[in-house]
Amino acid sequence: MNRHLISAGDLSKDDALLILDTAEELARVSERSIKKLPTLRGRTVVNLFFEDSTRTRISFEAAAKRLSADVINFSAKGSSVSKGESLKDTALTLEAMGADAVVIRHGSSGAPHRLATWVRGSVVNAGDGTHEHPTQALLDAFSMRRRLGGLDGRRITIVGDVLHSRVARSNVLLLATLGADVTLVAPPTLLPVSVGSWPCEVSYDLDAVLPKSDAVMMLRVQKERMNAAYFPSEREYSRRYGLDRDRFAKMPDEAIVMHPGPMNRGMEIAAEVADSPRSTIVEQVANGVTIRMAVLYLLLGGETVA
Amino acid sequence: MNRHLISAGDLSKDDALLILDTAEELARVSERSIKKLPTLRGRTVVNLFFEDSTRTRISFEAAAKRLSADVINFSAKGSSVSKGESLKDTALTLEAMGADAVVIRHGSSGAPHRLATWVRGSVVNAGDGTHEHPTQALLDAFSMRRRLGGLDGRRITIVGDVLHSRVARSNVLLLATLGADVTLVAPPTLLPVSVGSWPCEVSYDLDAVLPKSDAVMMLRVQKERMNAAYFPSEREYSRRYGLDRDRFAKMPDEAIVMHPGPMNRGMEIAAEVADSPRSTIVEQVANGVTIRMAVLYLLLGGETVA
Amino acid sequence: MNRHLISAGDLSKDDALLILDTAEELARVSERSIKKLPTLRGRTVVNLFFEDSTRTRISFEAAAKRLSADVINFSAKGSSVSKGESLKDTALTLEAMGADAVVIRHGSSGAPHRLATWVRGSVVNAGDGTHEHPTQALLDAFSMRRRLGGLDGRRITIVGDVLHSRVARSNVLLLATLGADVTLVAPPTLLPVSVGSWPCEVSYDLDAVLPKSDAVMMLRVQKERMNAAYFPSEREYSRRYGLDRDRFAKMPDEAIVMHPGPMNRGMEIAAEVADSPRSTIVEQVANGVTIRMAVLYLLLGGETVA
Repeated sequence: MNRHLISAGDLSKDDALLILDTAEELARVSERSIKKLPTLRGRTVVNLFFEDSTRTRISFEAAAKRLSADVINFSAKGSSVSKGESLKDTALTLEAMGADAVVIRHGSSGAPHRLATWVRGSVVNAGDGTHEHPTQALLDAFSMRRRLGGLDGRRITIVGDVLHSRVARSNVLLLATLGADVTLVAPPTLLPVSVGSWPCEVSYDLDAVLPKSDAVMMLRVQKERMNAAYFPSEREYSRRYGLDRDRFAKMPDEAIVMHPGPMNRGMEIAAEVADSPRSTIVEQVANGVTIRMAVLYLLLGGETVA
Repeated sequence: MNRHLISAGDLSKDDALLILDTAEELARVSERSIKKLPTLRGRTVVNLFFEDSTRTRISFEAAAKRLSADVINFSAKGSSVSKGESLKDTALTLEAMGADAVVIRHGSSGAPHRLATWVRGSVVNAGDGTHEHPTQALLDAFSMRRRLGGLDGRRITIVGDVLHSRVARSNVLLLATLGADVTLVAPPTLLPVSVGSWPCEVSYDLDAVLPKSDAVMMLRVQKERMNAAYFPSEREYSRRYGLDRDRFAKMPDEAIVMHPGPMNRGMEIAAEVADSPRSTIVEQVANGVTIRMAVLYLLLGGETVA
Repeated sequence: MNRHLISAGDLSKDDALLILDTAEELARVSERSIKKLPTLRGRTVVNLFFEDSTRTRISFEAAAKRLSADVINFSAKGSSVSKGESLKDTALTLEAMGADAVVIRHGSSGAPHRLATWVRGSVVNAGDGTHEHPTQALLDAFSMRRRLGGLDGRRITIVGDVLHSRVARSNVLLLATLGADVTLVAPPTLLPVSVGSWPCEVSYDLDAVLPKSDAVMMLRVQKERMNAAYFPSEREYSRRYGLDRDRFAKMPDEAIVMHPGPMNRGMEIAAEVADSPRSTIVEQVANGVTIRMAVLYLLLGGETVA
């Protein structure tokens, strides 16, 4: 495997399966109530967050600590970064301080890639601009594989603001690699121009797609974006693209519902759908820690799982 | 013992004594210079703070780390919580990430109780609104028991803004359970309407109560509240309810002075009283770590102390 | 050695050499890929930062964790300190919580010294006002000694805003103790009035000094200060005191370039000079962790290095 994890699109099918299988093994270890492994003792993982994202930061922090790594949290707010220090100098600083892995969240697409050119340690992209969020796609794939028994030929529908969503993009790329059939459903103004070249279908009619879906992934509505004239209003969005009880009833009996969180209950997803036994939303969070353990484990070259 | 610690009022006398006795045992271990116990290795404690409280957060963090737990700090500011995520979804997220205990500080009375209905891990209330702060009451009881030799029949006076004080409320409930006689002294406008049903006496005359007190606990003055027309001015408050040198002299020779901190020196308490050998203020802080170790130890089911 | 590290000026030559030699030994251990030593297991180091300084905080945090200490970060912003708690009460609180060492960054010169009078644990000054930053001077000396083979008789030039620089002051004091010859170069308005009593030379002509320098240390320009009428403009400063390619060429072939970071590339130092193999800027960061390990190790009385 590569030394970095920058993009779900970089992962070969073998890479992706290795991560999923390693996560499966780690999940089994953890089910035997072994919560802490000595694998990364003495290694340092730095969480370098240029944007607030407590959930993602905590998930990586928990993953690293369960592997016995030391974790240092670096929030760029109020740091010398905000005094104009370049990303390169920040990178060299963290490297010099002995970071074995840098987990980076950044508002600019491509920042993790640039970071990787400057450091010898591993770089893990924890979300960059509207580009990618590969561990989210991996945890989603892991969650689907566990529920659906496999991904090959499964029909996955992703609904919402694809234009601004690194989650959607990473999912489309990874799911295509893993052999799933992906359909995006979104208002036309919330799809990127380039979507025609993505390895997926596009539809504007959620009700037509639902009965043919094995998994439906609802994206978070960024309410602050919904005011612009060319986007639907909150109310219209919810009416046309929200997964309410009636739409949920149109899905096949075994189909699952996903959401990367945090949810707007009652907006893109009804509370009772979110809390249904066919929702994987809570599992996704737990699987996020497991997948991040697998990624850190593989990148930092742990030797044996347990 | 219960799985959660939400309210001092929920503790039976046996529960409370078990916590105090466990803390006593932990204090003895620590006096033997054993600063770190392996008891909670592999367990994760999350500090979920919706209000800033560095002192309380650090106290719990130090307690958990001395028991070898991993600690994750979650400040709700700037997190998805501030983007409107519900407390329930935050709770489910932390649970899914593997939190064995969630220590919660929240501005709304009742939030820890709601949290406890959603998670399987233990919930520890680190202060909720004007409701309760049970570990503060436990550390105060522990400090008094160590100094006074016991609590049964001891006369404890609590002075100050009882109306807004979760510390006062938790102390009254716990001390009554433990058999102490509590008297509240406050300006009438700083007492809650319900105080008539509390298991304590009420007085408006500090000078009359002091000579009959084994311990006097001064509450912190929230200066920002003192401007309202129906509260005394800072100056008047200090004159009538402040523990200055003259009032200190009226206390019995063995009586102790307490304060939960942070103090306004020269306001509710004179600097020389705070620094007197009969003040337990610094001990209270040290005892806070010990009590929180005992609480985490008992809730998370550690097996042996050492 | 003293129990605290408050000022580079307090260090005897023997003290300073002990720290440098301990750091050398720790660096060798770490080159043998032993990243974590058990020396300070069970000890607690508190980072008490009244000013933001992510780099310094992380450096101390990494150092303490590599020695297996527990680290608690205390940012004074939003804490009870900002509600008016005195430094003394904060100190007593940290002490009572069991801090074995307090690393303090404070905006007021002298705060670490006052702190040291109140606590039994060790106090390490991580920068106080315009006064001192002793671990910066130690890591600089360590970096120079490694590159230049020794410090005795070496000619060190420090360039920039000496007036506001605790880094310059600590360096001058320590380098004099270690037998180096220091020259300060700065615009007259950016030198302190007291500079005549410092153990160093002063010059206003960088070009005259460069050919006689074994090491040139460029200080960070605080751009916000450059607007005042009595300081040079950014452009003039850069032209007269910036280390650009032409000036770099005037230095002896073996002379090194230093900067405490974060740099303003293109302002006080040209990017290509900063990235030259003769620049120690990245090494300084790595050496910062090593020196802080040595300081914590010596102050907290670790027994053997490995």
